Amino acid sequence: MTNPTAAMLVIGDEILSGRTRDANMYYLAGQLTEQGIDLKEVRVVSDDPAAIIAATRALSDSYTHVFTSGGIGPTHDDITANCIAEAFGAAIGIRDDARAILQDHYDTQKQPLNEARLRMARIPDGATLIDNPVSKAPGFTLRNVHVMAGVPSIFQAMVASALPSLSGGEPLISRTYRVERGEGDIAAPLGALAHAFPALSIGCYPFQKDGLFGANVVIRGTDADMLNQAMAQLEAEFPI
Amino acid sequence: MTNPTAAMLVIGDEILSGRTRDANMYYLAGQLTEQGIDLKEVRVVSDDPAAIIAATRALSDSYTHVFTSGGIGPTHDDITANCIAEAFGAAIGIRDDARAILQDHYDTQKQPLNEARLRMARIPDGATLIDNPVSKAPGFTLRNVHVMAGVPSIFQAMVASALPSLSGGEPLISRTYRVERGEGDIAAPLGALAHAFPALSIGCYPFQKDGLFGANVVIRGTDADMLNQAMAQLEAEFPI
Repeated sequence: MTNPTAAMLVIGDEILSGRTRDANMYYLAGQLTEQGIDLKEVRVVSDDPAAIIAATRALSDSYTHVFTSGGIGPTHDDITANCIAEAFGAAIGIRDDARAILQDHYDTQKQPLNEARLRMARIPDGATLIDNPVSKAPGFTLRNVHVMAGVPSIFQAMVASALPSLSGGEPLISRTYRVERGEGDIAAPLGALAHAFPALSIGCYPFQKDGLFGANVVIRGTDADMLNQAMAQLEAEFPI
Repeated sequence: MTNPTAAMLVIGDEILSGRTRDANMYYLAGQLTEQGIDLKEVRVVSDDPAAIIAATRALSDSYTHVFTSGGIGPTHDDITANCIAEAFGAAIGIRDDARAILQDHYDTQKQPLNEARLRMARIPDGATLIDNPVSKAPGFTLRNVHVMAGVPSIFQAMVASALPSLSGGEPLISRTYRVERGEGDIAAPLGALAHAFPALSIGCYPFQKDGLFGANVVIRGTDADMLNQAMAQLEAEFPI
């Protein structure tokens, strides 16, 4: 069985200018791995309609799922919903169910549901809403694209709302083995191991810390028995 | 004057699986902004030759510079150099100048320059080397693509080696103004400000912390006078 695939599209000038360090990619990557969905590509684009539309189409065509973060708030630079609608030729407007959620929220907060806030009820036709338990304004799913907020706490809450309904494949298992040898000494045996276990993904991540150097060898796969066999060979090759 | 543009290509399964949190994107974004080069897009792809080659070609065609991180070590999963060569139809082999750097380094360390380590001297024809003061194995520049290591300390050292020779544009200046109001209250005046200053980029980044909520408004541009005018209007609209 092949796992479903996914891509992520991060939207925001604040990431590309170096002002903000993105936190959502790392979070989503971990969640998808647990769910058995293979994250294959991430793109970060600026708040530019042409860039957002082109990336949405390209990723939607290539992968089972696309997850976006950023650009769905009430301000003028929040253009993601419009761009996703345009990418698929869908109409977009204020939708009653989304409006009701916001009305209820701002009534409780004794704040007006003004024109800016009402922008967050703009949902493309044919989309289903993604629940936002943190700040209420919903995300949405249109075709295979899941559109979520950029603020990390809200992004994480939306991922929790959206992920359970997506059918994943077999969860990826990973094992790490620490070898205190130079990568140059590890490379040849590791290449042989990768050749012997083509169904496993074997990575080598060097470290240098406090005068010690070595590498963490990470073996990933969905078959636990095969993983154990490969780990046993690795331990025999580099005994502690 | 328009600033030169750049894209970044992050190569590595360890990022996409959620095992490692990427640090290089944030670092490079800050460095490029200081240098007056506009980072327009980032892509993260897995250790898959077809994905690396396709992304390299697409980004090289679209932007002034492309910076890659990851996949140039001595192990079997270090395939970046070969992929970059293939993307441009360049031959690749062990090059004398790169070999000499490694030979000298491993002689000093009293370690053998074995076959695996020698892989790090494989450089595409026509490339220039990027100095690596940390662990010696060089990066390289082929056409407009700058190929660097993934380990953050080495990546940063290579960026410091490569950046000064690239001519940048006018450095981007940014000013931040903190407004303790809901984004929904800020949105309309901010939209008007963006309309009045089309040459500036105006972003709004909400926060919620310790019961306080509000937004940091960030205005970016290359013209300091214009930036000051916009900031004055913003301060008048939302006095502290």
